[in-house]
Amino acid sequence: MADFSIGVDLGGTNLRIAAVDQSGTLLEKIPLTTQVSRGRDYVMDEMCAAIRSLAARLQPSGKLLGIGVGVPGMVDQRTGYLRGCPNLPDWSDTPVRAEIERRLGTRVVFENDANAAAVGEMWLGAAREVRDLAIFTLGTGVGGGLIIDGKIHHGVIGMAGEFGHIMIDPNGFPCTCGTRGCLEQYASATAITCMAKSSSDPELVAAMKSDPGVSAKRVYELAMQGNSGAREIFDLVGESLGRAIAMVVNALNLPMIVIGGGVANGWEAFAPALFTELHKRSLVYMATESATRGDAAGNATVITRSQLGSDAGLYGAARLPMPL
Amino acid sequence: MADFSIGVDLGGTNLRIAAVDQSGTLLEKIPLTTQVSRGRDYVMDEMCAAIRSLAARLQPSGKLLGIGVGVPGMVDQRTGYLRGCPNLPDWSDTPVRAEIERRLGTRVVFENDANAAAVGEMWLGAAREVRDLAIFTLGTGVGGGLIIDGKIHHGVIGMAGEFGHIMIDPNGFPCTCGTRGCLEQYASATAITCMAKSSSDPELVAAMKSDPGVSAKRVYELAMQGNSGAREIFDLVGESLGRAIAMVVNALNLPMIVIGGGVANGWEAFAPALFTELHKRSLVYMATESATRGDAAGNATVITRSQLGSDAGLYGAARLPMPL
Repeated sequence: MADFSIGVDLGGTNLRIAAVDQSGTLLEKIPLTTQVSRGRDYVMDEMCAAIRSLAARLQPSGKLLGIGVGVPGMVDQRTGYLRGCPNLPDWSDTPVRAEIERRLGTRVVFENDANAAAVGEMWLGAAREVRDLAIFTLGTGVGGGLIIDGKIHHGVIGMAGEFGHIMIDPNGFPCTCGTRGCLEQYASATAITCMAKSSSDPELVAAMKSDPGVSAKRVYELAMQGNSGAREIFDLVGESLGRAIAMVVNALNLPMIVIGGGVANGWEAFAPALFTELHKRSLVYMATESATRGDAAGNATVITRSQLGSDAGLYGAARLPMPL
Repeated sequence: MADFSIGVDLGGTNLRIAAVDQSGTLLEKIPLTTQVSRGRDYVMDEMCAAIRSLAARLQPSGKLLGIGVGVPGMVDQRTGYLRGCPNLPDWSDTPVRAEIERRLGTRVVFENDANAAAVGEMWLGAAREVRDLAIFTLGTGVGGGLIIDGKIHHGVIGMAGEFGHIMIDPNGFPCTCGTRGCLEQYASATAITCMAKSSSDPELVAAMKSDPGVSAKRVYELAMQGNSGAREIFDLVGESLGRAIAMVVNALNLPMIVIGGGVANGWEAFAPALFTELHKRSLVYMATESATRGDAAGNATVITRSQLGSDAGLYGAARLPMPL
C-alpha cells in the first residue's frame, strides 16, 4: 500500500509519465514520444489516456494524491495558459491547464519544467540540504527555476526564473526574444551546435568535415580530446554561465545553484571558465567564500551539477501535488 | 499614549534618528552629522546617547518597541558584522551590531540601508499595495533591497540585493569590486559626476567651464535645459538602469521596482531611456504588459520612484523592530 502521485514531463521530443510514491520511489514509468506534428489535441489525448490507465493499475494498492505536469514554456499561473513555448508551437497562448483538467476531471498542478526540476532536485537530488536554490537547465534552450524558502518563486504571473534571458553581452548574438546577448544564445545545446557550425577554427573545421553530424555532445567530445576550437566554445559556455550565475548570486545570495539539462553533461569542459568568471564578477560569491573560511558554518554558495539529470523534472512534477 | 520604535539611518554624511509610532507617525526626529573622521567609537557613542535620550523623553507616554539601524554596507546577518562599507571605512569587518547592543543593553535590528528603504516604501510609500518588490537606491553608490512575500530576502549571509554590481557591459567602466561594467559605475551620483568631468561633448565642457562645482544635480539641471552632453549622460544612466531592471524582472517577475536615492530626483531625465531599454531587454516585462492588457488584474510590473525619498531608510529602520 503506497499512496502515489503522477508526474508528467511534457517536452518537445519526449513525453514521460511516472508514478512516484511519497518516499520518492518510482513505481512505474511510461516513456512516450511527443507527437508534436499530430497537434495539441492528439498529444493531450494520448497523455491523458496514459495517466488514466496508470492510475487505474496502481489505485488498488494506494491513493492517487494528484497529478503534476511540467512543460518547457512560461506558465501563467493565474490563467493556466502556456506562453513562449517554441517546442510545442500550437500550445502557446492556449489554456493548457484547463484542457488537461477537463479531460481528466480533476485538478492538475501545471508548472514550468525548470521549476519542476528545481523541486525534484530539492526533494531527491543535489539540493536536499537547502531551502533556497536556483536551477539553470541547459537544453535546447536555457530554462530557469527558483525556490525561495522551500517554495517555487513564481512571481506575479508565474514567469520568474527566466535565466536564459540574462544579458551576457549587450552587443552579443541575437536572441529569439528580440534582444541580443542572452545566456540562451551561449549556453544551450542549440547555441553550442551553432557556434561549432560557424567556427573558423581550423582544427574544429577539420574535425567536423570528417563528421558532418554536429551535436553539442560531439563538440564536447572534441573539447575533451583537446580540439582548440571546441575548447574555445566550451570556454565561452562557461564564461557566459559564470556571468549569469554571478548576477543571480549578487541579487539573491542563494546557498546553491544547480546546473541541469543535457549540456550539464559537459561540466568538465565548461566548469573551469565558469568559476573563473564567477570569481571575477561576483563580490557576493567572494564574500560567501571568505565567510565560509572564517566560521565554516555552511555559508558557501555551492555551484553544482544536477544529480537527477534528465529525471529531475519528472520527479519534480510528481512531487508538486503532494502535501508539503 | 503611543508605543514607538526608534529608527536610525547611519550614513557616511548624515546620522538621522527618529521615533515613529506603529501607525507610521513621526514623533521626533534628530538630525545629526556622522563625524566619520572622529572614528567609529565616537560616532557610536554619539548615536547611542541620542537614542537613549530620545527613548527617555518618549517613554512616559508609550513603550519602546525596539531599535532598528540601517547602514550603507553589506550586513552579515549571522554575525552582525558590517562588510564593504566605503563610506564608513573603519567600520568594515567589525562586529557593529554587537557593539551597539552592548552600549544600549538591548537587542538591535541591524540592516543594510537599501533593505530598510524597501521596508519603508512597503510600509508607508510607493509599495504599500504589494508584498514583493525590489528597490534600487541610487546615491553615492548603488544599493539594492529585495522583499519577497512581505519579508526582506537576505540570502545566506545577508548579502542579497547587490544590484549595484549587476553587469551592464562586460568591458565597461572598472568597478571598485574588481570587475568591469557594474551598474554602480553608470547610475550613481558619483558615476554621473565622473562622466560629466570626463565628457568630451563641447556643449557640456562649455557649460562646466563657467561652473566648476560639478554635481549630479547640476548635470541633471543641464540635461533638463537641453544640454546635449548632459542628456547623453542621463540617457546612459537610464539605459543602464533599464538593463539591470530587465535582469531583475526576468529573474523574479516582481510586481514593483522602486527607484530611490538622490539620483531618483533625476527621474525625468533618465526614465525615457530606462523604459526603452527595459522593453528591449525583458521578455517578462513585455509579457506582464500584455497580461495586463488581457485581464486587467494587476499583473503589471510597475517601475516607479520612491515616495518617501531620503526618509525611506529612516522609516524602514523604525519599522524593522515592530511586530509584523
